[in-house]
Amino acid sequence: MLNFISRHGSEPIQSQLRRGIVDAIHAGQMQPGQKMPPSRQLAGQLGIARNTVTAVYEDLVARGYLDARPRLGVFVAGDLPAGPERTPAPPPDSPDWDARLKQRPARLRHQHKPSNWQDYRYPFISGQVDPGLFPINTWRSCSRDALGRSAIDWWTADRADEDDPLLVEQIRSQILPQRGIYARSDEILVTLGAQEGLYLLARLLAGPGITVGCESPGYPDSRNIMQVSGATIRDLAVDAEGARLEGDMDLAVLTPGFQSPTMVTMSPARQAEVLDRAARDDVLLIEDDYEGATAAPGTTTLRGLDRSGRVAYLGTLSKILAPGVRLGFLVADPALVAEARWLRRLIHRSAPLNNQRTAGIFLAEGHYLALQRRLREALVRRHAEVLAACARFLPDFRTPETSGGTSLWLECPEGLDGRALIAEAARRGVLIESGDAFVPEAQAGRFLRLGISHIDEARIAEGLAELGRAADALR
Amino acid sequence: MLNFISRHGSEPIQSQLRRGIVDAIHAGQMQPGQKMPPSRQLAGQLGIARNTVTAVYEDLVARGYLDARPRLGVFVAGDLPAGPERTPAPPPDSPDWDARLKQRPARLRHQHKPSNWQDYRYPFISGQVDPGLFPINTWRSCSRDALGRSAIDWWTADRADEDDPLLVEQIRSQILPQRGIYARSDEILVTLGAQEGLYLLARLLAGPGITVGCESPGYPDSRNIMQVSGATIRDLAVDAEGARLEGDMDLAVLTPGFQSPTMVTMSPARQAEVLDRAARDDVLLIEDDYEGATAAPGTTTLRGLDRSGRVAYLGTLSKILAPGVRLGFLVADPALVAEARWLRRLIHRSAPLNNQRTAGIFLAEGHYLALQRRLREALVRRHAEVLAACARFLPDFRTPETSGGTSLWLECPEGLDGRALIAEAARRGVLIESGDAFVPEAQAGRFLRLGISHIDEARIAEGLAELGRAADALR
Repeated sequence: MLNFISRHGSEPIQSQLRRGIVDAIHAGQMQPGQKMPPSRQLAGQLGIARNTVTAVYEDLVARGYLDARPRLGVFVAGDLPAGPERTPAPPPDSPDWDARLKQRPARLRHQHKPSNWQDYRYPFISGQVDPGLFPINTWRSCSRDALGRSAIDWWTADRADEDDPLLVEQIRSQILPQRGIYARSDEILVTLGAQEGLYLLARLLAGPGITVGCESPGYPDSRNIMQVSGATIRDLAVDAEGARLEGDMDLAVLTPGFQSPTMVTMSPARQAEVLDRAARDDVLLIEDDYEGATAAPGTTTLRGLDRSGRVAYLGTLSKILAPGVRLGFLVADPALVAEARWLRRLIHRSAPLNNQRTAGIFLAEGHYLALQRRLREALVRRHAEVLAACARFLPDFRTPETSGGTSLWLECPEGLDGRALIAEAARRGVLIESGDAFVPEAQAGRFLRLGISHIDEARIAEGLAELGRAADALR
Repeated sequence: MLNFISRHGSEPIQSQLRRGIVDAIHAGQMQPGQKMPPSRQLAGQLGIARNTVTAVYEDLVARGYLDARPRLGVFVAGDLPAGPERTPAPPPDSPDWDARLKQRPARLRHQHKPSNWQDYRYPFISGQVDPGLFPINTWRSCSRDALGRSAIDWWTADRADEDDPLLVEQIRSQILPQRGIYARSDEILVTLGAQEGLYLLARLLAGPGITVGCESPGYPDSRNIMQVSGATIRDLAVDAEGARLEGDMDLAVLTPGFQSPTMVTMSPARQAEVLDRAARDDVLLIEDDYEGATAAPGTTTLRGLDRSGRVAYLGTLSKILAPGVRLGFLVADPALVAEARWLRRLIHRSAPLNNQRTAGIFLAEGHYLALQRRLREALVRRHAEVLAACARFLPDFRTPETSGGTSLWLECPEGLDGRALIAEAARRGVLIESGDAFVPEAQAGRFLRLGISHIDEARIAEGLAELGRAADALR
């Protein structure tokens, strides 16, 4: 910032301004090619005379820092040494952030995904859509329709706590019945992905003095969200039938559709047991059905079976559309949805309305169901392929029995460190993910995750053969 | 939900299913014209025999509840009495939400805006953009560019904590310098409107034991956000030079550009005083520059003048683009931005990336600056017009001295109740807003807000003449 003009010091204002601009250029706050503010504007902002600014601009042009282009204005010179931005030392009187910050979310355990996964030949990454399956043309045409005059009049407005009725109706009638859920519109809230649903429910239902059951192994962000609320976490064990609801707790977060990260689907017997137990002990359940869109037809959800309104259900459009669009939904008791709506309003008002409208049109025109079918078919083939290739090339790695899902959970054989394997695989063009963030710290290095939502089916066997060679090279 | 199949009761399953579907139709959970799930799917979800479902479907077709369409499936009949959705009584074993909810945001004091403001002849509403000024064609063309193959590959991905570098660069080089702010990219976070910036900072910096200064009168949501964090609120008085920073506090939320709701611009002397005092007492400042985009060139911000990094600045694209797009930005010390980024990641990951890219293109192509100029000119004309019309038609209403802004703050004359005036004005096609949510409860009915961001300039005098007649009719 040009926060350097002081009338109290002994340094002349002109010199302070000159030094301030040069410092801002070196610090990356002003960058080569950037237009400088008109001298009148800058003088007004700094409360100094305009000809002081003009003189400094002329001086810096002469010294090569700035560039005057007739009729266009003054610019930061383009041929400065570019280099990386330099972070200047914090000012001496800056606040003590360590003392001021009431929470440090950056210090929680998170999944770290490389941002350059598209550069790997074998990207076994999870959570990313396959751009080859993204229906670019139909999405374009839906966007165009969402940019019609009457649609624009609707979504440009500040609607504070409203959702797009078109999108809500499509979620209600097309998506939820696939999961055995029948809901009125006052039981549905549009969220920014399933994750925001978790956050809203944590703020409303968790907190100090509340015990929350979290699956172990489990999705790190949902545990983080509950931890940040101040709640006490109780680990819920996961076996071949899914998570078990055992011990005293007020609230539990479950992923029955495909347990994250094992991808085990909760058995009907376990579903009944969990619901009975929750009713008996008055436990509230959060069902994170983040992969419900890829589940097999005829399977159901806790929300679909619940008779008491104690299951809050979270879904997402990220798996079918794209995570970058950030659309999900919460289905719960109207009393809970009403409070979640007001809390969402406090945080950021509604989810972006143009995206809601575009997605609503996409669903209403049937593109969602068509894409979902294609995606499910692709995932079924990839799942079979990855299971076969694992049996062949990674015979001593263990994996739970699963019927689908967008990733595979692998346990490394005794004596092989998963972290070393990830590094060795990366050198060979194979991107695999660490399971560390999903498990207790004592198990670091034992588990891996193979995502199949992004990789080309034809590359799965090749990639896992290479992974097998990487494992051999380490032994 | 079809949450009614019980194997323990005496009622046959077929009868339970039939009753459940009829109840769901009457409750609005299944609606006329909605497709019923295929019998195989529903049977699987409920764990019952398929021919039970088929028999119930046939029975309900015969009774007129369902409609069988050859080759298409079974649908809820279209000619059922439509009527409003009936909310069924909550199930007897539903959770006690009053006991379970840790906070009740729905019970906070909020602004209530009618959703049908477009139906009024004279809509003096604030916060809404003028659809007549929205550059529909250029926005369409930017959206099209954001839907190109390479752009799509970028924004469809799950980028967790990243922002669009194009948008960040445009905010950095085009928007912030207008407000005297020069920032590196690690000092900028893209948020869902300025409101999310407030929320993130409240979670990071406020809480029990922290005292937060809030302007009085002031923006209700920022006070609500701080209150919900558990912080103690200290009222900050507002005079003709803006808010005063007086008394002990840890943190203050200020709107120096245009004080919400009075629209008073903080004087340079008051800015210097506030910064000196904040430095002396180690008070952190949140500068909510929600209307910075319409401020006069040559004015500056606390962030632009701050030498210590203690001002966190909030801006928004809502005033120029559209609130429905939900894009804003936080500019602060890199230590604070890093934690806000991780907290945002916990809440909902990034702001929708397709909107970020579209807005980035809109800025990069110069459309933003052009639109901003047109909008500023329109607002200057409307501001002059509304001041003149107020002087003429509402001579005994008082308004603070302002130099711009998107609304006017009016104090009703002694003996005239603003709530009665709002109702009478509405009957005459004049929509004005209550100031109640901005002031202490004891002042209810005293203040009004005239928004000018949406109304046609040519209707301002007419509308205020009508408002004057409404006031006369009440006296």
